[in-house]
Formats: sequence, structure tokens, C-alpha cells
Amino acid sequence: MANIKELARMAGVSVATVSRVLNNHPYVSENKRNAVEQAMKASNYQRNLNAVHLSKGKTMLIGVIVPFVNHPYFGLLVEGIANEAVKNNYKLVLFQTNYEETREIEALEMLKHKQIDALIICSRNSPFSVVDDYTKYGPITLCEDSREKNMSSTFVDHYKSFSQALNYLHSKGHKKIGYCLARNSGSNSRYREKAYEDFLKKINEPFVPDYVFYDCLYFEDGQTVIQRLIGMHSPPTALIVTNDQVAAGILVCCTEEDISVPDQLAILSFDNQPIAQVMNITTLEIPLVEIGKNLLLQAINHRQVHHDELFVKMIERKTV
Amino acid sequence: MANIKELARMAGVSVATVSRVLNNHPYVSENKRNAVEQAMKASNYQRNLNAVHLSKGKTMLIGVIVPFVNHPYFGLLVEGIANEAVKNNYKLVLFQTNYEETREIEALEMLKHKQIDALIICSRNSPFSVVDDYTKYGPITLCEDSREKNMSSTFVDHYKSFSQALNYLHSKGHKKIGYCLARNSGSNSRYREKAYEDFLKKINEPFVPDYVFYDCLYFEDGQTVIQRLIGMHSPPTALIVTNDQVAAGILVCCTEEDISVPDQLAILSFDNQPIAQVMNITTLEIPLVEIGKNLLLQAINHRQVHHDELFVKMIERKTV
Repeated sequence: MANIKELARMAGVSVATVSRVLNNHPYVSENKRNAVEQAMKASNYQRNLNAVHLSKGKTMLIGVIVPFVNHPYFGLLVEGIANEAVKNNYKLVLFQTNYEETREIEALEMLKHKQIDALIICSRNSPFSVVDDYTKYGPITLCEDSREKNMSSTFVDHYKSFSQALNYLHSKGHKKIGYCLARNSGSNSRYREKAYEDFLKKINEPFVPDYVFYDCLYFEDGQTVIQRLIGMHSPPTALIVTNDQVAAGILVCCTEEDISVPDQLAILSFDNQPIAQVMNITTLEIPLVEIGKNLLLQAINHRQVHHDELFVKMIERKTV
Repeated sequence: MANIKELARMAGVSVATVSRVLNNHPYVSENKRNAVEQAMKASNYQRNLNAVHLSKGKTMLIGVIVPFVNHPYFGLLVEGIANEAVKNNYKLVLFQTNYEETREIEALEMLKHKQIDALIICSRNSPFSVVDDYTKYGPITLCEDSREKNMSSTFVDHYKSFSQALNYLHSKGHKKIGYCLARNSGSNSRYREKAYEDFLKKINEPFVPDYVFYDCLYFEDGQTVIQRLIGMHSPPTALIVTNDQVAAGILVCCTEEDISVPDQLAILSFDNQPIAQVMNITTLEIPLVEIGKNLLLQAINHRQVHHDELFVKMIERKTV
């Protein structure tokens, strides 16, 4: 492929003239413009857009950090981000971190090196202080409450929504309430644990470590939960579950094990994915697609730092 | 932020010397190297990696075309691609097309303009001839049989595997077999339709248009299938289903509607996702993660065009 020098040679003009033609500058004679355009055609010249981005300082790429691409929760978030990106002519660069901090740093470094215009962090592993260091290179948008920070955010209040779930189950007569979480680090999990602790104090119940189930992410994780539950002398009468997929897995296992839902075990989950509708699962709807859309808009309209709290909604069905 | 000229001025050296230091060239005196490094530090200089890519001609970005990011089938494919990309220090640029051809062209144009090093098309909408035009700009890898073309591919033979599914159901005594597909365009769907047509001829059964269900992609689509089935005078006794998610949705609706599986309706699906294991669904395993991994390797090791056929595997469970 010809470069700009060769084009100049072929067209019999200066490199500066070729550059002016490429950038649609005025003050190029009609003859010279034609000569350059013919040389471009003859040599099948393609502009290297990295060069164009270099001069304009924009890549039209937005980085998105997710722990896994193939998960219903992050799938819906990325769906919201991707749909809005398409509308605004942005493309997404996907960083799958598997919850590894070094992968997150790689993404932050790409922001630093101007390879992406902005970065959306759907699930953060690095400390706030580390991420904050990179805000000077470009906008960083978070999917968690960052009202104290110099980064825009779109979030639901996980303390508030988990408390809402607990109080709802309590109002239905439950005191022995267990819960499932994706992982025991992560800020969202910490908010949920704090809400649980405060709730137990309020209703004066002891903390039972057995009632907490970690690493519940996928449908198949429901199996492990029910296996552990069956082995308990005094199992919980209700479960708050990470997401609808895990709740669906639990529900299918309950049918197999003849555990009656909600009589023996009430199930309340999060997200309101289609599977929750089909299986009649009571759930707290998290507007994930809406959150994703808002995160993308914050990333591309970043003149001011914005914080948008969105709200969960109780969808009452048949598992509580 | 300082550019290379300012660095040169600050360090009291030539632009060429700064360039040599940035690119770790030898033949720079210790004094000059120190001066440049101090200037970089003082000015908080960051290399614009687009400039580096420009000179090296590599972006370390691989484009991935999918119709939707949030779908179990493409989710597993992208998982395979993403895991292998991480290992090889590549990042993914995601193009969600919603099956729109113009979105595909945008991705192809990014390849043309050197914004990505290679392109993986998980589901193609543009004609082969259009895609083929872009192979001169960089490697394009396809997730469908392209043995006649100048593009690498990793695929399963959908004609062969659909025939395998039909013959399996026939060996179990079924003659009235229906099937669900994602969409009625797309080359994979065409192979499946052709296999169905040939099978009907072979067993001398008529084609019943009612036995074909389109737009079956998600769990919730199972509901529509069962609703239509209930309304039929002579419903099929077996269904071959797009994927395990739709099969799971059908299975849940069968339970609600008191349709006995497999006695009244046998269900055979594709993929072997975890949900198929938990719900005991008989399925033809498609090695999606393996396919994704291979697609990425083909995209980055592209000196020769390769075609790799992978094979489905019958997983017998309780729905046939």
C-alpha cells in the first residue's frame, strides 16, 4: 500500500499538498487535487485512521470492564451500553477481567495511552485510589455509588435494596433468612452484607454463618445451595438470591427434592430477567439495560461529573 | 501534555534523539537519554500509543461481530474468544449488529482503516462477495464453513449435525418432527432447513409448515412454541430446538400445561449449556468455547488460511 510520500511522488506534488488534499483543506489547485486523487485510486490508498485519530485525539472507542462477558447480569449491562454506543457511533473495547486487578490496570493504561476515549467500569477490583489516578487521562464511569469521587456513576443503592428485600420477607413472617452472593469481595456484596447485619440487629436474631452462600453466579450454582440446605438441621425459611438465574436453578432443584416453594422455602431474587417471569419468581427488578445506557451517555458526555441513582422495583410473583 | 518537539526543546536535544529514546534504540549517549527521561517525567509525558501503532502497524485489537452480546450462544463464543485474547495480550472490539448489514460494514471498514488487526465474524449478514473484498486489508475469520473462500474458518457442519438429530429422533420412533430456529435467514438456518427437507424425502413424510418455529432465541420464546403447539390438531411428537435456553423454556411450559416429556413431546436441543445438565435435557453439544478459542487463534496466526471443522456430540438425557 502506498504511503503519503509515494502518493506525492506518483502525483508529482509535494507531501504537504497530498496532506492538504487528504484533510480537505482549501488552497489546493484543481489540477493538483485531481493528480492526488488519481494517485490514491491507482495505488488503492487507504488512510490509516490511527493517524487521523492521532491528529484529532479521538478514537470513538469506549472501553468496558466486565469480570465475564458471558453472564446474565453483565450481559444485560453490556447490552444497554452496546445499544447506546451503536446509536452514538461508538464502538466498545471489551476487557474481560475474571476479577483480576491486572486486567483492570491494562484497561486503565489504554485510557492513559489514548487508545480509548473513555472507560466504563461495570465491576471494580482495584482500589478507588488507583482508579482515581487515571481520571486525569480521560473520563471513567462507574457502576457503583461514587458520589464522593471525581468519576461519574450510575448505580442502584445496594444497601437500600437489600434492606427492602429483607423487610419484605420479614413482613411475610420470615426470621430465618439466608442469602446468596456472587463473591465475598466487591463493593456491592459489602453493602448487602452490611444491610443483613443491620437487619439482624433490628429484629434481634443471631448471625448464622451457614445461611450465607458465596460464589452463586449461574443457574447450576442453585444445585450446591439446595444440597447444602438439605444437610442443615435448621435451614433458613427464605433465601435472597444473587440473581434470577441462580433462583431458577434453586427452584428446579426444589421441585426435584420435593421442597415446597414458598411454603418450605421462600425465594426472592434480583434483576427480573425473562426467566423470572416464565418461572414465576418474585424478584427485585434492577434496570440493568437502563443503567448500561446511562453509563455510556455519561462516558461520552463527560464535561461534568454526574451521579445517577436508579431504583429497584419489587415484582411480586409466586416464590414468596 | 508535552509532545515530542517540546520534549526535545526541554531536554536540549534533537527530535530524532527523543524518538530514539522513546523506542529504546541504542546509540544514544547516557547524558542525552537522562535528559530526555527527565523531560518526560517533568512534563508528565504519555506516549500516544496510536502513534506507536501507526509506526508498527499493529493495534493489538481484534474485532468481533455478533448479532447480540447478550445471548447464551454468542456469549459462549465470545467467552472462548475473550479468554484466548487475554492470553495473547489482544483486546476485543465488539460490534453488535442486531443482524443489520450496515453494522457489519462498519466493522469491515475499521479493518480497512487499520483500526483493528483482524476481524472475527461470528454471524454473517453481508454476502460472501462483500466480505471477500475486505480480505486484502487484513485477516477475516468466519464461524461457518468457508472452505471455498480466502478466509479462515472454524465451524460445525450444521447440515450434518441437524441430520444426526433427525435420525436420532427417527430411531426413537418419531416421524412427526418439528423444529425451532433463530431466524429464517442466515447460512446455519439454511443448512438446517435443507437437512430437514432431505430427511422428509428419505422417510417419505410431507412437509408441515406449522411444524417450523422461527424467532426462537431465548428462554421466554419457549412459551410461544407451546402455545402454538397446544392449538394444533396434529402436533409434532418431537421438537429439535435452537438451543438449550429455548428448550428449557419449552420444558417449563410443558410442566405447567401437563404435557408429558418425552412421552407426549420429545425435546432435543443444541449446545449443552449448564441449564441442559440441570434440567436433564437431551442435547447435541456444540463446542462453542473451543470454537471461539480457535477463531481467535486463526485471527492472530493468519499467515495461512485454515479451515477447522469441530464436531457435535450427542448427550443423551431425559427429554427424548
